[in-house]
Amino acid sequence: MNLRIGIVGATGIVGMELLSLLEERKISVAALRLFASEKSTGKRVYFSGQTFPVEKLEMGKLENFDYLFFCAGTSVSREFIPAAAASGICCIDNSSAFRGYDDVPLVIPEINPHALLGHKNIIANPNCSTIIALMAIFPLHQMFGLRRFCAATYQAVSGVGCSGMRALEEEIADSHSLAEKIFGERILSNAIPKIGDFSPNGYTSEEVKMLNESRKILSLPDLRVSATCVRIPVKRVHSIAAIVEFHEPFDMRLGEQILQQNNSIDFFQHNEFPCPLRRENMDNVAVGRLRSDTFLDNAVSLWIVGDQVRKGAALNALQIMEKLELLRLPKILRQGPETASGR
Amino acid sequence: MNLRIGIVGATGIVGMELLSLLEERKISVAALRLFASEKSTGKRVYFSGQTFPVEKLEMGKLENFDYLFFCAGTSVSREFIPAAAASGICCIDNSSAFRGYDDVPLVIPEINPHALLGHKNIIANPNCSTIIALMAIFPLHQMFGLRRFCAATYQAVSGVGCSGMRALEEEIADSHSLAEKIFGERILSNAIPKIGDFSPNGYTSEEVKMLNESRKILSLPDLRVSATCVRIPVKRVHSIAAIVEFHEPFDMRLGEQILQQNNSIDFFQHNEFPCPLRRENMDNVAVGRLRSDTFLDNAVSLWIVGDQVRKGAALNALQIMEKLELLRLPKILRQGPETASGR
Repeated sequence: MNLRIGIVGATGIVGMELLSLLEERKISVAALRLFASEKSTGKRVYFSGQTFPVEKLEMGKLENFDYLFFCAGTSVSREFIPAAAASGICCIDNSSAFRGYDDVPLVIPEINPHALLGHKNIIANPNCSTIIALMAIFPLHQMFGLRRFCAATYQAVSGVGCSGMRALEEEIADSHSLAEKIFGERILSNAIPKIGDFSPNGYTSEEVKMLNESRKILSLPDLRVSATCVRIPVKRVHSIAAIVEFHEPFDMRLGEQILQQNNSIDFFQHNEFPCPLRRENMDNVAVGRLRSDTFLDNAVSLWIVGDQVRKGAALNALQIMEKLELLRLPKILRQGPETASGR
Repeated sequence: MNLRIGIVGATGIVGMELLSLLEERKISVAALRLFASEKSTGKRVYFSGQTFPVEKLEMGKLENFDYLFFCAGTSVSREFIPAAAASGICCIDNSSAFRGYDDVPLVIPEINPHALLGHKNIIANPNCSTIIALMAIFPLHQMFGLRRFCAATYQAVSGVGCSGMRALEEEIADSHSLAEKIFGERILSNAIPKIGDFSPNGYTSEEVKMLNESRKILSLPDLRVSATCVRIPVKRVHSIAAIVEFHEPFDMRLGEQILQQNNSIDFFQHNEFPCPLRRENMDNVAVGRLRSDTFLDNAVSLWIVGDQVRKGAALNALQIMEKLELLRLPKILRQGPETASGR
């Protein structure tokens, strides 16, 4: 890998995390350009021993890239991605703009990397809560066959970006707050059961995403999902209380083993449990509180915790790029030397 | 009513709320005595224009009362209630000590006041989350027939008493904290999925209470309930995301009407929703986010919010006393003058 990378929304919370992950994961970056809205242009951002200017995003600048990460809003993605993709740049979009399109893969690399095959230079990064929930549910689905699930979320303020973090910090510091502007309500000592906009069926857009995106990622078009998505005064880690029902009888011992052996999951046994405050800046999703559900048969109740800025956004986007790079390698290399030597 | 009342745990969060509710609801108090643990004895507490001493609780002092409210822990209830009840004092117990006993009514006055008939001087006040959840679920059950429900709670720190409130305030003020002592974890910017102790089946005692107490209050011994109870950094109001399944097809219009016309419920229509911070010190439980559930048939998803210290504890206990007083009145008075005059 020696990649020419651009980040759109580089001064936002996901853009900044992406930058630090590029370093942390030792991605070999041949060229880097950073874009943001006008109010950030002119700033310089540190990366890997140098500083880079933040540029105003303009169509003419989107050339000579291997990958463009879009970490701004849906409108920016809609405006710039189609042309960039048509010019041959692979665009990994963190917004919801293209997630529903049939010819746009919606990918969690641990779950449906095959969806990347034959992509048309637009890859959608899923919704944060959906990624975190499915990371725990998918390995169980492989064994027991997912029938349906419900989820109540405990979502961090980082979900709305830096301004959400600032709003919470301000309220903690002096109880004056920009929270009402950002969330419509104060956030400290509160729980706001509305993330996104209301749909006609009463679910919010965030709740609808969990239904639609789970169906697409898992290739289960009739999957039933119901979510209640709630913003709580937590900084950057989402938690989810889920009940997952399977076609097959759920075996607790086996379920625990499956989660424990999964490299992308930190599994908490028995009387241990993950809390969001202890999971900041961690790549793995944490799962605990496994119990045979007392409400549905063949179902498990569980508690899932993940850093929304990492696996819920920047890390998953970067893993998509890593997976695409792997797919680009000649087959003989991808299989590794042992297979290549004829074993 | 001209009642001789004693409050055990009078300096705790529920005891203090009870005192202010006695004034607010204009209960005619003929005599009042306040009891607490040794560290509070000697204090004086203001009530209705006078101050009252806080006394150390001793068996010999528990006489000449009509009602004793127990707002201390289960061990205090276990030690003092049986003798007090045997001596003819009606004991209303806020602890879980006697909730499971067959001959102890477990009462939410709006739901099962009939359970008070033939009581043996011990009445149990249910768990706070159970009260708040059932206040919303019961009127729907009457129309559609409850089959089962699941609930994810967002519980306030007041649930553990004054020390919980203080722990949150301390963390907000200077980030030093007694939270780890109280909750086992820091509470600011956190969500702790453990309230009470773990049972062998993996549910916590708080979660098991919602199952067992719902069965008893609703007289539905086979009811299936599954809960995930989570402490979040909110002061004194609990929120609950519930999915409620019925035997009959759920009709949204009718369901909305039923909740709207219920005097003990503040119903939030369509795109309005209740948040805990705005529901402090309110008697009514608030219900919103009603939507036909996308996970189960004949089911509704809803968001329930109630002041844990009021309806979740002190108010419900006081309403039990008010209901008992009503039951003591001669029948002719209870029916009101119109019926008494022969109409």
